[in-house]
Amino acid sequence: MKALVYQGPGRKALEECPMPEIKAPTDAIVKITKTTICGTDLHILKGDVPTCSPGRILGHEGVGVVDRVGPGVTTFRPGDRVLTSCISACGRCEYCRRGMYSHCTTGGWILGNEIDGTQAEFVRIPHADTSLYPIPDGADEEALVMLSHILPTGFECGVLNGKVEPGSTVAIVGAGPIGLAALLTAQFYSPAQIIVIDLDTNRLEVATRFGATATINAGTGNVAEKVFELTDGHGVDTAIEAVGVPASFVTCQDIVAAGGVIANVGVHGVKVDLHLERLWSRNITITTRLVDTVTTPMLLKTVQSHKLDPKLLITHRFALDQILAAYETFSHAANTNALKVIIEP
Amino acid sequence: MKALVYQGPGRKALEECPMPEIKAPTDAIVKITKTTICGTDLHILKGDVPTCSPGRILGHEGVGVVDRVGPGVTTFRPGDRVLTSCISACGRCEYCRRGMYSHCTTGGWILGNEIDGTQAEFVRIPHADTSLYPIPDGADEEALVMLSHILPTGFECGVLNGKVEPGSTVAIVGAGPIGLAALLTAQFYSPAQIIVIDLDTNRLEVATRFGATATINAGTGNVAEKVFELTDGHGVDTAIEAVGVPASFVTCQDIVAAGGVIANVGVHGVKVDLHLERLWSRNITITTRLVDTVTTPMLLKTVQSHKLDPKLLITHRFALDQILAAYETFSHAANTNALKVIIEP
Amino acid sequence: MKALVYQGPGRKALEECPMPEIKAPTDAIVKITKTTICGTDLHILKGDVPTCSPGRILGHEGVGVVDRVGPGVTTFRPGDRVLTSCISACGRCEYCRRGMYSHCTTGGWILGNEIDGTQAEFVRIPHADTSLYPIPDGADEEALVMLSHILPTGFECGVLNGKVEPGSTVAIVGAGPIGLAALLTAQFYSPAQIIVIDLDTNRLEVATRFGATATINAGTGNVAEKVFELTDGHGVDTAIEAVGVPASFVTCQDIVAAGGVIANVGVHGVKVDLHLERLWSRNITITTRLVDTVTTPMLLKTVQSHKLDPKLLITHRFALDQILAAYETFSHAANTNALKVIIEP
Amino acid sequence: MKALVYQGPGRKALEECPMPEIKAPTDAIVKITKTTICGTDLHILKGDVPTCSPGRILGHEGVGVVDRVGPGVTTFRPGDRVLTSCISACGRCEYCRRGMYSHCTTGGWILGNEIDGTQAEFVRIPHADTSLYPIPDGADEEALVMLSHILPTGFECGVLNGKVEPGSTVAIVGAGPIGLAALLTAQFYSPAQIIVIDLDTNRLEVATRFGATATINAGTGNVAEKVFELTDGHGVDTAIEAVGVPASFVTCQDIVAAGGVIANVGVHGVKVDLHLERLWSRNITITTRLVDTVTTPMLLKTVQSHKLDPKLLITHRFALDQILAAYETFSHAANTNALKVIIEP
Repeated sequence: MKALVYQGPGRKALEECPMPEIKAPTDAIVKITKTTICGTDLHILKGDVPTCSPGRILGHEGVGVVDRVGPGVTTFRPGDRVLTSCISACGRCEYCRRGMYSHCTTGGWILGNEIDGTQAEFVRIPHADTSLYPIPDGADEEALVMLSHILPTGFECGVLNGKVEPGSTVAIVGAGPIGLAALLTAQFYSPAQIIVIDLDTNRLEVATRFGATATINAGTGNVAEKVFELTDGHGVDTAIEAVGVPASFVTCQDIVAAGGVIANVGVHGVKVDLHLERLWSRNITITTRLVDTVTTPMLLKTVQSHKLDPKLLITHRFALDQILAAYETFSHAANTNALKVIIEP
Repeated sequence: MKALVYQGPGRKALEECPMPEIKAPTDAIVKITKTTICGTDLHILKGDVPTCSPGRILGHEGVGVVDRVGPGVTTFRPGDRVLTSCISACGRCEYCRRGMYSHCTTGGWILGNEIDGTQAEFVRIPHADTSLYPIPDGADEEALVMLSHILPTGFECGVLNGKVEPGSTVAIVGAGPIGLAALLTAQFYSPAQIIVIDLDTNRLEVATRFGATATINAGTGNVAEKVFELTDGHGVDTAIEAVGVPASFVTCQDIVAAGGVIANVGVHGVKVDLHLERLWSRNITITTRLVDTVTTPMLLKTVQSHKLDPKLLITHRFALDQILAAYETFSHAANTNALKVIIEP
Repeated sequence: MKALVYQGPGRKALEECPMPEIKAPTDAIVKITKTTICGTDLHILKGDVPTCSPGRILGHEGVGVVDRVGPGVTTFRPGDRVLTSCISACGRCEYCRRGMYSHCTTGGWILGNEIDGTQAEFVRIPHADTSLYPIPDGADEEALVMLSHILPTGFECGVLNGKVEPGSTVAIVGAGPIGLAALLTAQFYSPAQIIVIDLDTNRLEVATRFGATATINAGTGNVAEKVFELTDGHGVDTAIEAVGVPASFVTCQDIVAAGGVIANVGVHGVKVDLHLERLWSRNITITTRLVDTVTTPMLLKTVQSHKLDPKLLITHRFALDQILAAYETFSHAANTNALKVIIEP
Repeated sequence: MKALVYQGPGRKALEECPMPEIKAPTDAIVKITKTTICGTDLHILKGDVPTCSPGRILGHEGVGVVDRVGPGVTTFRPGDRVLTSCISACGRCEYCRRGMYSHCTTGGWILGNEIDGTQAEFVRIPHADTSLYPIPDGADEEALVMLSHILPTGFECGVLNGKVEPGSTVAIVGAGPIGLAALLTAQFYSPAQIIVIDLDTNRLEVATRFGATATINAGTGNVAEKVFELTDGHGVDTAIEAVGVPASFVTCQDIVAAGGVIANVGVHGVKVDLHLERLWSRNITITTRLVDTVTTPMLLKTVQSHKLDPKLLITHRFALDQILAAYETFSHAANTNALKVIIEP
């Protein structure tokens, strides 16, 4: 079968690979019908993710059809149409029982990282019963690819951890796909304001179209000052960090109101300054989270009932044969205005 | 001044009454600019509310302008435009500190019940600092009359107690003004379905217009059966009782899903059957609540940010001189299609 | 092997039965080393539990050693010492994912009810990975038998649902083994008062020894009056119903404070009166729950750290050969002062 | 009257001062019967607290008797015995309504800081109705001085924010009076382990006496390594920072388990390093909080019911005339083994 293989820092190729095989009784083999590329794949390609070795098939998002299942799989059968979660969860370890699938002792984020991923014709999914989700009849499969990773991430790490509520004020720092996923799902809770902050004019325009009540271009002037103007001098109840660099985390500290929450979503590579000399008495909460995908069933219901339209995030479509072009388009988003690109084997 | 006075069971009149006076340092006198009539006023007029004695000025909802304040009032000054809460709260007793204003040891629901109310040109508001709310600049005052009582009631007793959440299923039994207030505010949380159940065709049409995803006429066939059909046989996650009679509370028991909530809003006059022989093992929660109006600040923000349009609930308008006609219209809602009627002194 | 078999209403016998066999890949066979009898077993023997057919081996509590496992079991191996949960949970259905193991679509309370149970030399445990718990090294196995059913039941259905907290007041209506389990685990949260109410003098003495701050004999005078005396006229913040008859549920309604919780634990056979005409405005919560045993890992930690001594609940010990005598002793608790009886195959 | 006056950095004196007077209708004048010294007073004396000007009477803790009340005070009368809270709360601003008394727009921590404090014969208490608490009959007043500040601080900022629960593991970094207050109140929730970390051998001995299950001297070897040994390699569910320097906050980051909480209690003077490059994916929560004293009523109940013995924290007693000696003793705790010192005017 064909698959996109990481060949070491800076190198990747569409290769002919052996078909995946059932290794454990709880595995399933899924024929991928649609997948996509994530910013994390670009990080791997830069050599920033030491858990991912050369030779690895990339990709942790996708939908497909169950091809084969191991004898321990009870929920799915060949022919079932399924959503693959970016997180593999055994459902039985102490973390899974607490809903912290991200820290599953034999799973977590391993797909397209420690084991072969979804940018391929077929993929092996471990712990299939608790890592696949049935696709409802009549659902738009393309839209559901957004539920493998970015929508639960924006929702769980940003919106739920950030305690967005009716009438509250929210700022989202970073309008990439994940920040936009937080923007879309924050609206589940009817906040009064959602202020989106980014350096990219196109993404701020997208944010406005997706429901932001105000946008701030971080390249022009004092972000905190503008946020305080927009919030009667209070700052925001929820500041969602969706970039992953020290400056944007400091911005969150500058704009959070007393009693508010900073919900970190971004993947950070270096330490950041925490201004406890100002914040110790401000009754704030800071959260971090690797997505658990425990809200996938809830998100499926919001899509089915038209409370959420994940398709808004899709800008380009490619065949698997064109996946190198897809990577080009996705990695030059500033020029291509790409958000998420769909790839079809 | 003129005021609508309860004269004993079945009797009321628009009378000339003495102006209210400051009795405690924490009192304010408010000149009423708009008020309304509540179903509870009709109960008083039937003689069903023993705490309300003949001679009482009715009414517990309204907006107005502060006329005078006692020396202990620090937040408001004459000329301030204010919303009067149906609940008087001292802000200092053990219940107020817990956010249970409804059980304030020197307040609670006393307005238009144990003390004179708002269907008058002026009203005395005890504990003014914690029982009045400033009206934001540019707000539509008529709309805010709905925030004195019915919107916080539908929201706190129905939606918050009912734990409505994104993708969940909700049934509202009773589409009177309070049930419709629950319908409007349930949408803050983006449930997948809101099923409204009533006997009145007009009210069900209104419910559809207000956002119900399905309606059931309780007079035609088996309600529970229809709810199960609409919910894939699960029943609803949240059943909101907004009538106050045994039959509607039993309906809630029939339609609530395992793990769900029955949030009682209705005012009940007699005991009801609780089918613990079926429900003991179903992991359900039943809540009761006299509105606390602790969410009034949050609701004001949702109105200001256009997440909630309370004006939808207003169907008729009268001058104070026509208040007897207003009562006629309101008490014959089945014929007049009245929801809430605005009265202007 | 030997096992205690239900032979239809009023009849039971210790019979020679075939050894259980692995039926599904996720099954384990456990050699029982200690088991016990539950009040529910007596209900079955009266014919009150229609899901339990004659021929069924009874018992849903126990500890033992894993004898064999199916190919889908990954957590346990032959020789592992394990606690068997009264609830079988697949860990993968929508209810299990929400922590509602009691409503597992292929499990729940089936052991000793719809499938053969633990009052036997061997038992088949379905969904073994998520229905067995490893016994920590050095743990007292006899004590852990109490964690199969009664301690999680008292804790989850009574204490957690009842929201017991530091300084709060608690009443427990019914001092049988489950009520006493609630009494022991309520103390995790340091309430100011725990008032235990029962008709049996011996059980009230046991309650005092187990940490009750006051006891009331329900047979002598007005229970509600005494509770109000003990609580400065407020009633209790948490009323735990641990009997399962209408009268005790009404007592809970009589003694719950405004803003309080009635946590139902009892198994009810008939409907009860709910006095909504008094309670609609009292801001109370009523909960029901079939135990989920999701807190078993937490309870194991409290036992290991000596915050909980389950052994207090054990009064008698028998060999499996004497199980009929054990039933006699347990079912005549008023005379024998039995709480829980240990049976060793 | 006599009072301890801050005279600028490094200088203080017991001076004769004018009696405080009622300035607002909601003020009360309290005759102090017992007060104490806090570490924060030492910070003020170093010149570290810019809001506190020379000439200020210090002290924010105490019990006493109401001497006079303004006309707006409704809850207290002259002669009432009262506990003074370190936080003044109006009970009516948006923060007070949310239970964030620490950020009251006309209160917060002002006593002995922006207005004259309690190390005096008399003190003016603003917002008396919501800033004083009645002392229960028969209560030990000396013990209750600990409820003005340190017990609610340890409890709210450390234990409640830290989400301590039955069977969980807790580390407290810093065994000063506030850390010990967290240690005492953490036990309300029956955690399995409480590990206390400090440099002072005496304080670690005190911690053991107060209920720590293990202590670690931070001066001898690798703290994190020892914590991981004690917790089976997991780290702690709750890490309470009770020192206020960068190193101790980093220790908390080193020892917190995935899914855990770092609850900051310490007053920080400089920024700290936050290792998001490690923590972004660990699902942790960090909280900060200036004490709100909203739990004072709950803590009073735990003292009355003997679940908490605040007197354990008192090591020395002085007359007001000896207050300079009291400061000497308190500020040389390493030599004097002082925890809290009681001062009686």
